[in-house]
Amino acid sequence: MSNRFTGVLAPVITPFDDNLLPDRTRFVNHCRWLQAQGCGLAIFGTNSEANSLSVAEKLALLEAMEDSRVDCRSLMPGTGSCALPDSVTLTRAALAAGAGGVLMLPPFYYKGVSDDGLFAYYAEIIQQLADDRLQIYLYHIPQVSGVPLPLSLIERLVKTYPQQIAGIKDSSGDWSNTLAMLEAGWEDFRVFCGSESFLLRTMQHGGAGCISATANVNPAMIVRLFESWSAADAEQQQQRLDQIRQIFQDRPMIPALKGALASYGKDPQWLRVRPPLVGLTAEQFAGLEQAMQQAAFAMPGIGA
Amino acid sequence: MSNRFTGVLAPVITPFDDNLLPDRTRFVNHCRWLQAQGCGLAIFGTNSEANSLSVAEKLALLEAMEDSRVDCRSLMPGTGSCALPDSVTLTRAALAAGAGGVLMLPPFYYKGVSDDGLFAYYAEIIQQLADDRLQIYLYHIPQVSGVPLPLSLIERLVKTYPQQIAGIKDSSGDWSNTLAMLEAGWEDFRVFCGSESFLLRTMQHGGAGCISATANVNPAMIVRLFESWSAADAEQQQQRLDQIRQIFQDRPMIPALKGALASYGKDPQWLRVRPPLVGLTAEQFAGLEQAMQQAAFAMPGIGA
Repeated sequence: MSNRFTGVLAPVITPFDDNLLPDRTRFVNHCRWLQAQGCGLAIFGTNSEANSLSVAEKLALLEAMEDSRVDCRSLMPGTGSCALPDSVTLTRAALAAGAGGVLMLPPFYYKGVSDDGLFAYYAEIIQQLADDRLQIYLYHIPQVSGVPLPLSLIERLVKTYPQQIAGIKDSSGDWSNTLAMLEAGWEDFRVFCGSESFLLRTMQHGGAGCISATANVNPAMIVRLFESWSAADAEQQQQRLDQIRQIFQDRPMIPALKGALASYGKDPQWLRVRPPLVGLTAEQFAGLEQAMQQAAFAMPGIGA
Repeated sequence: MSNRFTGVLAPVITPFDDNLLPDRTRFVNHCRWLQAQGCGLAIFGTNSEANSLSVAEKLALLEAMEDSRVDCRSLMPGTGSCALPDSVTLTRAALAAGAGGVLMLPPFYYKGVSDDGLFAYYAEIIQQLADDRLQIYLYHIPQVSGVPLPLSLIERLVKTYPQQIAGIKDSSGDWSNTLAMLEAGWEDFRVFCGSESFLLRTMQHGGAGCISATANVNPAMIVRLFESWSAADAEQQQQRLDQIRQIFQDRPMIPALKGALASYGKDPQWLRVRPPLVGLTAEQFAGLEQAMQQAAFAMPGIGA
C-alpha cells in the first residue's frame, strides 16, 4: 500500500471568468505552478469553492487536467457530496483520470445523523464503485460541514475497508483529535493536518503531511518543512510558515488567496469569487498587498 | 400578484426502490393522494431527502410529474443548492413544468457568509433566469442549513425584487421571527410556518399557511384548520394537530413519515431511506404503529 499519499497538497483555488464560470486555462496553469513547487493537487476542496460548482463543472475541470501536461497521479480531488450519486459520479471520474486518491466529505446537509448512516454512506460508495484503485481520504471539517466524523466511525471504516480507507484530512484545528488518529495505530493510515500550522507536530508524530489552503500561495516553503522536519531549523521554518499564514487567516481566506495570485500575477481576474462568497474590497486588497510586502512574502515564478 | 401560494403544502417524501433509486410510480401516487386531500406539493424539500438526490434525479422526478395527471400549478419544488448553476438549472426546469413557485434554500456549505454574499446569490439566480413567472419562496431553516436568512437580508431582497421574492417558509421554530415577518408589512409577501404547530397563530396574524413535514401523512386535518382557522373549534383542531405531530416528532422524522405510509399502505418499500439517513428498526416501526393506533390516527384513502 506504498502508493498512498504523503507530502503537501493544495486545495486548488478555482479561477472564474467574467461570467462566473470556471476558467480552465488559469486553473491548469495554477496546477502546473503548484506541481513545479512540489505540491500535490487537492482540487475541489473547501478552498476551491468546490461546493459552489456543479458536478458538470467539476467533470469539465477534471477533463481539462487530463488534457494538460499536469501529472494526474498527484491529484486528490474532493468528491464527497450531499447526494450519494454525485459522490459516485465524481469519484469514478477521478479514478478514470488517474487520481491517486479522493478526499471525501461526509454528506453535509442533514445534521445530527448517526454514525450508522455515515458508515452506510461511505460503504455504499465503496460498493457501488467496486474499483481496486479506490483510495479514500476522509475529510473532517466539522466547523464548515456541520457533520463531524467521530474517531469510532473512522476506526469502523478503517477496519471494514482497510484497502479503500487510506487516510484523513483533519481540518478541525483540534490537535488532540489529530494526535488521537496519529496514535491509533491503524495500518498505513495517512493523517494530514488541514493547516501547515500543525505540520511540524504532525510529522513528529508520524503523520503524512498537510493539505492546506495557504499551500496555494506558499507551497515551496511548506514543502521544504515537510522534507526537512527533522532538521535543526525546523522550528524556525514552522514559525516563518505561521507568520505567512497569519496574513491570510486575518482576512477572508479564499478571497485573500485569490488576491495574492491577482497581485503577484498582475492578473485581477483571479479576484473573482462565486456567491455566496464576496471578493475583497479595494481597501482589503490594498491591506493584503501591504501585509505581504511587510512580511517579505514572495511567490517565485508567479507573474515572472 | 394574486397567483401567489396560500394553503398547506407537503415537502413530499421520496420513495426509493431496492437499488436506492427514486421510485417514480410511488412518488406520483403519493403526490396525487396529497392533492386529493387539498395539499400543495413542496417536492424536493428537507423532508424529501432532496439534498440526497442528484440534479438529474430531481429533473427525472419533475418529468414524471409532468407526465402524470398531477396539477403542476400546485408545485413548489425546492431548488436552492450549494452550487449556483444547480439552483438555476432546477428553477428553470420547475418553471418549465409549470410550478407556481420554488422554495429556495441559501447555499449551505460555506458558513458565516455575509448578507452581501447571500444577496448576490439570489440576485444572480434571478438575473440568470430572467423569467417573469419566477416566484421565489425563501427557505429559512438555520438549524439544518447552518445558514440563517436574517430579516434585514429578506427585506433587502423583497425591496429589490418585489416581483420575484414571493414569500418565505420559516422552519426556524422561532415564533418571534415568524411574527416579525408577518408584521413587516411587505406587500403580498407570503409567510408560511414550517410546522402546523404554528398554523393557527400564523393564520391569526395574516400568514399564508404552512409547509410541514407531517402534511405528508395528515394533510386533510391540517388543510381543515387552514380553511376554518376563524371557526369556534380552531383551538381544538390545533390541539389535535399537535397531538398527531408529536407522534412523528418523537421519532426520526423522515423515517417515521415513511413508516406511516408503509404501515397504512401495507407497503414496506416506503421504509427505505437514502444514507446518511437510516430506516426505522423493527422495534421503532412497531412503536410507531402503536402510537398511531393509540392516537386513533388514520390516513383515509391510503391502502384502501
